[in-house]
Amino acid sequence: MNSKPLIFITNDDGYKAKGIRKLIDILRPMGKIVVVAPHVEMSSKSHSITVGKPLSLKTITIEQDYEEYTIEGTPVDCVKMGFDNVLKRRPDFLFAGINMGANTSINTIYSGTMAAVMEGCAEHVPSVGFSLCDNDKDADLTDCLPFVETIAKDVIKNGLDDGVCLNVNFPLGQIKGIKVGHQAEGFWTEEFDKTEMQDGHSIFWLGGEYHCTDKDPNADWNAVNDGYVAIVPMQVDFTAWKFLDKTKKRFENI
Amino acid sequence: MNSKPLIFITNDDGYKAKGIRKLIDILRPMGKIVVVAPHVEMSSKSHSITVGKPLSLKTITIEQDYEEYTIEGTPVDCVKMGFDNVLKRRPDFLFAGINMGANTSINTIYSGTMAAVMEGCAEHVPSVGFSLCDNDKDADLTDCLPFVETIAKDVIKNGLDDGVCLNVNFPLGQIKGIKVGHQAEGFWTEEFDKTEMQDGHSIFWLGGEYHCTDKDPNADWNAVNDGYVAIVPMQVDFTAWKFLDKTKKRFENI
Repeated sequence: MNSKPLIFITNDDGYKAKGIRKLIDILRPMGKIVVVAPHVEMSSKSHSITVGKPLSLKTITIEQDYEEYTIEGTPVDCVKMGFDNVLKRRPDFLFAGINMGANTSINTIYSGTMAAVMEGCAEHVPSVGFSLCDNDKDADLTDCLPFVETIAKDVIKNGLDDGVCLNVNFPLGQIKGIKVGHQAEGFWTEEFDKTEMQDGHSIFWLGGEYHCTDKDPNADWNAVNDGYVAIVPMQVDFTAWKFLDKTKKRFENI
Repeated sequence: MNSKPLIFITNDDGYKAKGIRKLIDILRPMGKIVVVAPHVEMSSKSHSITVGKPLSLKTITIEQDYEEYTIEGTPVDCVKMGFDNVLKRRPDFLFAGINMGANTSINTIYSGTMAAVMEGCAEHVPSVGFSLCDNDKDADLTDCLPFVETIAKDVIKNGLDDGVCLNVNFPLGQIKGIKVGHQAEGFWTEEFDKTEMQDGHSIFWLGGEYHCTDKDPNADWNAVNDGYVAIVPMQVDFTAWKFLDKTKKRFENI
């Protein structure tokens, strides 16, 4: 009997990315590992899934207590393929990342890494996403690795409440501690870059600038900018519960 | 002075789809209309955005109080391009759909239509998504059109609370009335279809079956299956607020 926990790992930066390699190194002593990750980078793919065209599963490594596969799909495709075709069951835990780039505030909704975590959560698997607030593919992960290990060990030992997953973001540089808070309110002003082509038409490149409108120091964006690890408990539910009664009164007899 | 409200319209089925053409017909008398929709179908694209490759804007129609454009991008790309490059400002209202296919329960998170609505909501624009629980591209919209008109008129007259958008799903067939409730709890079992190729490798097609685990008759999936229009007030916030204190106690001094 293998009593080790079955740990599923994925990301959105692709299976070769530095972040997932470090995450695998940390988690490997903690259980039986199955990795299904995108073959190439799938950042900003959010919760998109591949419908109407097929996916191929490529085996990278099969060893004792360690299997690694890739697909030419999105992070959520990886979770679905992993649970349904590789494992044939739900794993005991899902970890995603370590993403290079912040998944705080509204950026959570664009993130493929956090979409994979949400998908695990929806399938009732305790799921955690890790991200570093640095877009450099070769960013230094030294300061955040001890926190990844501690948080992962705690989750594997104590689990998470059903329907709740964790979004963990690491600040740049030395870490002051951990702050738990909510997803910060904020938005992007996009400011596309425009290129005029020789044939007269224009093409546009999405860029933009993020604006945080949240003053709470515990809100994730503020916490990481203040040097703290930001942890947000998250759920797969868009319902604006506070507005349910008001909406009911307004629209049910319209 | 043009005192008509500025109404932005998009979808994920593409600009030629029956649903958006009907939505445009209904909304056109209510204000100045700007449509930016995907050139081709972008279902299941969720909140994904096009980063690192350019977008082209194609003009379809420019008339008095009516402009229509397409891009080879996702629904959220359409919203960003519409607000920032076409309008140069936020519109007064955003409407998306009418989507062919249910966007109830967890399906909301995969939906490009509802992602566009969420993006509008994040930008503080009163936003509403309409979907019909029928995947047939030529589905009959007759029964739901009067409800689309009534709801749109009410939102244009009375607005929506800042940070709250509406997810409206229509049942098949005759409509009993409107129910306002929460996003139903449920999940998919995926059951990929497998094809063995001549060279020995397998390809997988995502299919699957949805399971609703929510017993509340007001939950959106249950409401539409009982013949009601389901309205859910939604917000762009994944925070599991009920678990914030517990998570704080557990992880801040780990």
